[in-house]
Amino acid sequence: MDRREFLIKGGAAAAMGLGASRVASARTTIKWKMVTTWPKNFPGLGTGANNLARLITEMSGGRLKVKVYGAKELIPAFEVFDAVSRGTAEMGHSSAYYWKGKVPEAQFFSTMPFGMTAQEMNGWIYYGGGQELWDKVYAPFGVIGRPAGNTGVQMGGWFNKEINSLDDLKGLKMRIPGLGGEVLKRLGGTPVNLPGGELFTALTSGTIDATEWVGPYNDLAFGLYKAAKYYYYPGFHEPGTILEALINKKAFEALPKDLQAIVLAACKVVNMEMLAEYAARNPGALEQLVKEHHVEVRAYPDDVLRQLRKVSREVVEELAAQSKAAGEIYRSYSKFLEASRKYTRISDLPYLQAREA
Amino acid sequence: MDRREFLIKGGAAAAMGLGASRVASARTTIKWKMVTTWPKNFPGLGTGANNLARLITEMSGGRLKVKVYGAKELIPAFEVFDAVSRGTAEMGHSSAYYWKGKVPEAQFFSTMPFGMTAQEMNGWIYYGGGQELWDKVYAPFGVIGRPAGNTGVQMGGWFNKEINSLDDLKGLKMRIPGLGGEVLKRLGGTPVNLPGGELFTALTSGTIDATEWVGPYNDLAFGLYKAAKYYYYPGFHEPGTILEALINKKAFEALPKDLQAIVLAACKVVNMEMLAEYAARNPGALEQLVKEHHVEVRAYPDDVLRQLRKVSREVVEELAAQSKAAGEIYRSYSKFLEASRKYTRISDLPYLQAREA
Repeated sequence: MDRREFLIKGGAAAAMGLGASRVASARTTIKWKMVTTWPKNFPGLGTGANNLARLITEMSGGRLKVKVYGAKELIPAFEVFDAVSRGTAEMGHSSAYYWKGKVPEAQFFSTMPFGMTAQEMNGWIYYGGGQELWDKVYAPFGVIGRPAGNTGVQMGGWFNKEINSLDDLKGLKMRIPGLGGEVLKRLGGTPVNLPGGELFTALTSGTIDATEWVGPYNDLAFGLYKAAKYYYYPGFHEPGTILEALINKKAFEALPKDLQAIVLAACKVVNMEMLAEYAARNPGALEQLVKEHHVEVRAYPDDVLRQLRKVSREVVEELAAQSKAAGEIYRSYSKFLEASRKYTRISDLPYLQAREA
Repeated sequence: MDRREFLIKGGAAAAMGLGASRVASARTTIKWKMVTTWPKNFPGLGTGANNLARLITEMSGGRLKVKVYGAKELIPAFEVFDAVSRGTAEMGHSSAYYWKGKVPEAQFFSTMPFGMTAQEMNGWIYYGGGQELWDKVYAPFGVIGRPAGNTGVQMGGWFNKEINSLDDLKGLKMRIPGLGGEVLKRLGGTPVNLPGGELFTALTSGTIDATEWVGPYNDLAFGLYKAAKYYYYPGFHEPGTILEALINKKAFEALPKDLQAIVLAACKVVNMEMLAEYAARNPGALEQLVKEHHVEVRAYPDDVLRQLRKVSREVVEELAAQSKAAGEIYRSYSKFLEASRKYTRISDLPYLQAREA
């Protein structure tokens, strides 16, 4: 509907007592673009973005239509934040640690090595003050960030050699983003960041020696088992990574209240559903990797994990010291995590142990 | 708006090219009642029901208004299913194991002793075929059941004596609903079921010797620490209890598609948010119970847990043998759980262990 048609219909409706704004909100179609860091339709991540768009469209009865673009369709994978900030797209779907060069504090809203699980991140974000801190960090960029997906505990990654000691990490060129990469660097490795779609080629060609991505469901989809033999756990560096919906603040504020409520609720639905999808798909994918593709699943040795944990703590504390905002977020995050660990010791952890004993 | 007014306005709107149904859906206010098993505004459970109602009202721009009733306000706590089935209320908020006398199979959609965690239940329900089985079980009653909350791993319960061996369970009169109660019975105890609001009085007066309820956040709210000294873990009997939204099928089908999408999405939002609220509130409540109220937190002994697990398996298998439907659900549930356990052994469990090591 163009503006003239809208005014005519709105005027007629007002004359018969319906109220122009009500009719307008029932009739006007708003069109939004959503740019993403993922290959179009990539399982879990890309389909999560699709679900987010579909839900908004369905719940709004088509009043707000969101069209999804895969990485490179409109912009490169790692320019999602900038595109939403400048309004090239009204929405984005990505993860906050990709913006560490521009907003180091954003990493806290993605995942921390040896940090919170998905359940804990949701507790902190929605009921522990996390969202308010996130809003403050993104406000200067005119962007709103909201959880819209979680991978759960990730896998450690793919290696072409066994990791028997810390020495095996030295000189290792590994794709590992965010703070996990910084941990590897301190232990003598060389972290690199690449979009998911480039991992297979980089690993096959020897550009990198090792890579982490997400977990069995996603790693199977990229065929990483063809490029590396050993699959390590646990993913200490990403214990519950939040995928984020980015929303241009001006575009959001221009929406009527009911559409605002719909957009925010859709993010929450996808936040829950994506984790559920990983919970449902990872076990079968793991079985396929082991039985059909003969992948060797290995645990990081205990002393390697202990050292990774020690260095992780140092790296997170140094991030906290980088700015006043980072310090404030770190204190909130750590306080929540320490209390939660005490409770986890009498709930999730002993339950999972008793189930396996 | 009455029917006559609606027809007049709709007719006028159609004449001007808006389409009667669009105007109707923008103007008509539908009013629904939601009956619940919880005391009005009870933390987590009752407030979850409130959030569900509020979300539907907000996202629909007030076109669908849902009013929440606490236990006993319209009907007794355990008549929620019947009330929604006969249309006394369009919605309910409760948990499926309360209907075991009428629909034994419903228990699978609540929680199983030594069964799935919250994350696994969501995987099974949304992506593992669980919802389709749930729909089939409730169809004869004209009711739709959807997850709308989860407590996470619960606590074992409140006791006035230490549980050092299986002998200590003999003769124990304990409030414990669902299959957990059946497990206690096989081990010589006497399970009873009471609505949450009656637990404190029953425990104080000696009507029961022990009780489980949910976890620190909810148990603190009921003051159970004043009536018992020992607080046991883990809650083997309820490792991830789903709270359910019940929806009268005819009322649901009478809604326009966008409102249907809104109702279903609101259930998913609350399903996620309630678990997040427990994750955020339980740790602080635990600290308060221990530091201010001197509660003694105790682990069930390993041999007691082993026996509880063995009997749990028997009880669940007997439920599975009760009907063709129960057998079908059990096979789906068990297959999902067994695959998930294998994956959990290389993901959540070793991660939580490494974080504490």
